[in-house]
Amino acid sequence: MNYYSAPIAKLIDEFSKLPGIGRKTAQRLAFHVISMGYEDAEKLSNSIIEAKKSIKYCRICTNLTDKEVCNICSDPNRKKSVICVIEDPRDVVAMERTREFKGQYHVLHGAISPLEGIGPEEINIKELLIRLQEHPVEEVILAMNPNIEGEATAMYIGKLLKPIGIKVSRIAHGIPVGGDLEYADEVTLSKALEGRREI
Amino acid sequence: MNYYSAPIAKLIDEFSKLPGIGRKTAQRLAFHVISMGYEDAEKLSNSIIEAKKSIKYCRICTNLTDKEVCNICSDPNRKKSVICVIEDPRDVVAMERTREFKGQYHVLHGAISPLEGIGPEEINIKELLIRLQEHPVEEVILAMNPNIEGEATAMYIGKLLKPIGIKVSRIAHGIPVGGDLEYADEVTLSKALEGRREI
Repeated sequence: MNYYSAPIAKLIDEFSKLPGIGRKTAQRLAFHVISMGYEDAEKLSNSIIEAKKSIKYCRICTNLTDKEVCNICSDPNRKKSVICVIEDPRDVVAMERTREFKGQYHVLHGAISPLEGIGPEEINIKELLIRLQEHPVEEVILAMNPNIEGEATAMYIGKLLKPIGIKVSRIAHGIPVGGDLEYADEVTLSKALEGRREI
Repeated sequence: MNYYSAPIAKLIDEFSKLPGIGRKTAQRLAFHVISMGYEDAEKLSNSIIEAKKSIKYCRICTNLTDKEVCNICSDPNRKKSVICVIEDPRDVVAMERTREFKGQYHVLHGAISPLEGIGPEEINIKELLIRLQEHPVEEVILAMNPNIEGEATAMYIGKLLKPIGIKVSRIAHGIPVGGDLEYADEVTLSKALEGRREI
């Protein structure tokens, strides 16, 4: 039994394909769209197709951008001597929010994961090596996620870059600020101990 | 500081206008759209504008439909002698899921709420009266929500229809199936007592 008229059913269907959107939420979103003004619905519809059309990879760092070279790579005020390697374009946003890092990025678009069949060839490691050959830098910061895949990727890149004589560093693991020792897992806590610094 | 390139920022903006979608979810949805195939993104975009374009109100029951008369009103297998009055098109779907009701619907698109400035004129009560004059029925079931606005609307419609000699009924309030007496609020429980039936 089809409770909805066809265009609503189709819209609910499309919404429920999105991550984290179940049938109920999709239904609520669909009815909201129908109750929206025509212009607002058009804006939403257009922004989807516009983003899809105009977003491509930055020629230098492979971050998402609507230009040939992204805003960060083309910013003359940012240091060219440090590259922060991250897994995902979302991580660029997370790093930028700190307002601490003023260097360049390199987006791998994934991490090495033998279980999922993702080897070093599947992510943008080769692009990083070519980039470093063309424009040598002082330091490469490995900011992959602190999980098995991220660590494997960091180790792999570290082993490739060390022989070339580039300083390679890994972001610190430890207790998050505002966190509680009591509730920290033992791996994080031992990493925090291991990474202790003299004060 | 703008962390996203313009089309992504705009897409996140549009998504976060939807109900129940915060900035974080909007960001996840936007990045998902960008990682989608072009055709899938087009489908999503088109289904939004298509639904908005084609959905209108049924001439008879004012439910949402893409036709002049909705599927339910034009179904020859459904009884014409009973009309179930509900607040919202979503409630039609909820009623249809029971597979118990085989009559017609009338959608009010709201409920009387003096606090929000919604009087009887603002919802489709007049349309219901005209409809009943043109095609008299045996029974009108009032299935508004069991809250202050719904009860007020039910009372108002009841008072209008009783003098015309139409049988008017209200859906039962009581303990939900699978519910627990211990956790039922006192109003629901007293309604359940009040509505008790001999077995």
